[in-house]
Amino acid sequence: MHQAFSRRAGLAGLAAAAGALALSPRFAFAQAAAPAAASQAPGFYRFKVGSFTVTTVHDGFAARPVAGFVRNAPLEEVQKVLAESFLPTDTIRIPFTVTFVDTGRQLVIFDTGNGVTPAGATNGRMIGNMRSAGIDPARVNLVVMSHFHGDHIGGLIDAEGKRAFPNAEVVVPEVEWRWWTDTGNESRSPEGQRATFANTARRFAPYQGSIRQIADGAEVAPGIRAVAAHGHTPGHTCYLIADGDAQAMFVADATNRPELLARRPDFHIVFDFDPAMAEASRRRIYDRVATDRIRVTGYHFPFPANGYMAKEGNGYRFVPADWSSAL
Amino acid sequence: MHQAFSRRAGLAGLAAAAGALALSPRFAFAQAAAPAAASQAPGFYRFKVGSFTVTTVHDGFAARPVAGFVRNAPLEEVQKVLAESFLPTDTIRIPFTVTFVDTGRQLVIFDTGNGVTPAGATNGRMIGNMRSAGIDPARVNLVVMSHFHGDHIGGLIDAEGKRAFPNAEVVVPEVEWRWWTDTGNESRSPEGQRATFANTARRFAPYQGSIRQIADGAEVAPGIRAVAAHGHTPGHTCYLIADGDAQAMFVADATNRPELLARRPDFHIVFDFDPAMAEASRRRIYDRVATDRIRVTGYHFPFPANGYMAKEGNGYRFVPADWSSAL
Repeated sequence: MHQAFSRRAGLAGLAAAAGALALSPRFAFAQAAAPAAASQAPGFYRFKVGSFTVTTVHDGFAARPVAGFVRNAPLEEVQKVLAESFLPTDTIRIPFTVTFVDTGRQLVIFDTGNGVTPAGATNGRMIGNMRSAGIDPARVNLVVMSHFHGDHIGGLIDAEGKRAFPNAEVVVPEVEWRWWTDTGNESRSPEGQRATFANTARRFAPYQGSIRQIADGAEVAPGIRAVAAHGHTPGHTCYLIADGDAQAMFVADATNRPELLARRPDFHIVFDFDPAMAEASRRRIYDRVATDRIRVTGYHFPFPANGYMAKEGNGYRFVPADWSSAL
Repeated sequence: MHQAFSRRAGLAGLAAAAGALALSPRFAFAQAAAPAAASQAPGFYRFKVGSFTVTTVHDGFAARPVAGFVRNAPLEEVQKVLAESFLPTDTIRIPFTVTFVDTGRQLVIFDTGNGVTPAGATNGRMIGNMRSAGIDPARVNLVVMSHFHGDHIGGLIDAEGKRAFPNAEVVVPEVEWRWWTDTGNESRSPEGQRATFANTARRFAPYQGSIRQIADGAEVAPGIRAVAAHGHTPGHTCYLIADGDAQAMFVADATNRPELLARRPDFHIVFDFDPAMAEASRRRIYDRVATDRIRVTGYHFPFPANGYMAKEGNGYRFVPADWSSAL
């Protein structure tokens, strides 16, 4: 122990030395710092839901102009809401985060990320971040889809067009499946969403024989239950994850960024298939998770994309869960 | 290794048995998920302030009973504030996160973590997380101290009692230095803080000749300026980090967890040396960063411990900054 060192004399010496050093040039510019490794931390985060292990894995982000993103409110009103959360008001960053649940019996992934993206893209990081998290795509038993927009189904296939999850069954909401596999619905779909028909055919093709359609409210696997939240797309579905008393809900695209759309559930965004139905669904889902204080993961939530919804005014405030180094 | 092998073989056996009972054996129980690597993501996060690179590095957490933590409010009132942020109400987790700034000329660390901790401790993770972040302690040029509580100065020395940052100068607020290096002040210090005198002597001892005392408001290094925030300890100091128009403030212990104490700046906690002065300082600091929308890092903030303060009611709401995979 350094208490052996004469405290009073030692402190006096230290104090004198400190005083003398104040003007010394020895340290102020002694050594230029070697540049720190400039990479960001890997994008994954783990927490428990009962005995289940949940891992959220980041797929990067896309950016688009704020102008035009919300269809039923003036730009200034949208920008005001973004600024309250200290977010940029010219460009909206849309993050992508995939939720994995290891139930001990099965390794389940909810939605699949953007998939293969061009070099330099800011998304398409899921496979790399899975590697950092120690998750091998070959170990995934079940792929559970919320809906069929491109950023959710893109990752079903790899660069060769083969199954990205070679050993997985794919669970799809039957309403969603029926809509996007019937090209007769094209003319009844918003123009911006018509590419989803061809993309659905392409992305699911390698999984023929491994696709299971489920009804609203169905139990997908022990501990995982579908919760219909139609509107964002015809069959958009959330999933309740439960082990004993512990619960979490993957709310998928009940909203895009919660800082904007949970705060203002009345805002209708360009990606909503049926905006009024989408609004009713998100109010129902968020009211449930807020009332029951159920933890949520969201696909477009700020990474690590897990937290809680608190009722506030006419909307909800997303409260990130406390980050913990311990599982 | 042998144990892992046996357990895996055991799981395969279980899976085969389960498969025989399943209705849809091919997928439902085709393959028991190998246990995911149970480790948490490394605790570091990077962002830019102008051309400076800031890295926050997690040192883990400590837990203590909520009862007795706030001295001037009933337990129920404290618990209500914690519950609003979906935090536990029996135990409060106090996270520790160290801020590094690479100015291009110097690599600076603000406070030093708990240092060497007993095996099994939930804190003392800084050196490991620095390694994950690619930060070598030998590259640190400047250690800048906010105050001398044990969780801030513990990491000055390594397991052998030597400098943990062998090439660093240590900057200390002169008011703080004078208080804790004069044992004549022991009787004028709260009983719970008296160990700080001996601990100060011990932790700074190896840095004799490398300690620089600074005055309130002093420029510590180009782009880094002291901002007095006395009260939590006699010389507690925050630091403004600025490059061009870009600013961030390391607010240190202006508050402990912001979910509790930024929401209620009138709460006085057991660690405050002079509670009334601490309250005045935190109101002044938080009013400034809220008004000027200055990004903050905090020592006991939820990891990654960076965000903004929004005025709300009689207090402030901590709004985490958006996580970004891009620097």
